[in-house]
Amino acid sequence: MNLILLSAADFIESSSRVRLTGRRHAHIMEVHRAKKGDVLSVGLIGGKMGEGRIAAIDKQSIEMDVVLKEDPPKALPLTLILALPRPQVIKRVLLCASSLGIKKIVLLNFFRVEKSLWLSSSLQEGAIRDQLVLGLEQAKDTVMPEVALKKSFKKFAEDELTDLIKGGLPLVAHPGAAQACPVGVKRPVTLLIGPEGGLIDYELEKLTQLGFKTVDLGPRILRVESVLPFITGKLF
Amino acid sequence: MNLILLSAADFIESSSRVRLTGRRHAHIMEVHRAKKGDVLSVGLIGGKMGEGRIAAIDKQSIEMDVVLKEDPPKALPLTLILALPRPQVIKRVLLCASSLGIKKIVLLNFFRVEKSLWLSSSLQEGAIRDQLVLGLEQAKDTVMPEVALKKSFKKFAEDELTDLIKGGLPLVAHPGAAQACPVGVKRPVTLLIGPEGGLIDYELEKLTQLGFKTVDLGPRILRVESVLPFITGKLF
Repeated sequence: MNLILLSAADFIESSSRVRLTGRRHAHIMEVHRAKKGDVLSVGLIGGKMGEGRIAAIDKQSIEMDVVLKEDPPKALPLTLILALPRPQVIKRVLLCASSLGIKKIVLLNFFRVEKSLWLSSSLQEGAIRDQLVLGLEQAKDTVMPEVALKKSFKKFAEDELTDLIKGGLPLVAHPGAAQACPVGVKRPVTLLIGPEGGLIDYELEKLTQLGFKTVDLGPRILRVESVLPFITGKLF
Repeated sequence: MNLILLSAADFIESSSRVRLTGRRHAHIMEVHRAKKGDVLSVGLIGGKMGEGRIAAIDKQSIEMDVVLKEDPPKALPLTLILALPRPQVIKRVLLCASSLGIKKIVLLNFFRVEKSLWLSSSLQEGAIRDQLVLGLEQAKDTVMPEVALKKSFKKFAEDELTDLIKGGLPLVAHPGAAQACPVGVKRPVTLLIGPEGGLIDYELEKLTQLGFKTVDLGPRILRVESVLPFITGKLF
């Protein structure tokens, strides 16, 4: 937690005093080992970032006087469309995407996504939000990513994808593609990462028709949560 | 497990028949759901890669006839010097580094590394090896990385670092550095990633004297296991 993320509900008394309990309080006590007078990085969800000086701290709660003046870092101009992964991967990849500054994430169904994965408790709104918050706290950012769940590839491709990729560069990570991943791109990118078993021909054709280019990422197969920073490093 | 990693001890009867039990057997049964006649990607630790055709499979073991003809992918020309992280991070970062094709990893002490971390069971030879194997199985590679544990920064910097960086580009990931991380580098890189709290002045001076350049990675603070693929994507 490189930044303590605050919400409007944390503010008490004045416009600059917050009281925290629970997870953040425990983290500040146990990891930061902070004491009265210490100054920590803080940020308001969806708002500015700054510093919080500890005014009071005990076993139940912590109070800080906060000054919020800095803008959060610029959003990464990358929209991520990701084949719904297994539950333990969802968590890691949402945290990773959030920490990279990705602000729009679509979890999409494909032929090779097991249907039972859509029942995962990792997809509940609170569970998704928890991982996104951890990512922002890691990266020092305050802007929550949007996550959309799309259970029909065909419907999503036909109804929404054209608008989504307008004005940007649409890429599909595809092992063995002739083209290497572009570097130092100067415009927004929509990046699609398919399921473990790969895309079926129908899906790849549909994406190609819409303007997606397949790009290769080298000879090694990386985990999704490694692919994401790997491509981000190349693209921007 | 995109590749089943074999060792010399797995071979029985002839030079091409292997018998697997334990973890790999369970994975092939439960995840691959493979049956007799199926063909899986295999590779010999430190040797060639190829295919294994399942000759027999039951609840105790699996036998495959393997043909090994392909070379593993080229090593990534990156030496990683990493401040010893916390135990749960060690595991993830070793797996990640191994999957990226990094073949030389030094876990190093710094002033801001808690001394108790050196007692972690994650540093036992078998525990390190387990993560490296998982990384190779993920990436489809056979060449085990070397991992060295160095408990004195001063001694390592004075006795070994000059030789290690010879002919290559020595970089320190350093938030706020004036220079951005270089892209498309054509020579070997030695990359140093310091501890969570950062390097102290003495350490940074010592590294600068040896020729290390500090490089910035953007406004966000990433987890080590995200920094690694992020930098790798930029550099190569």
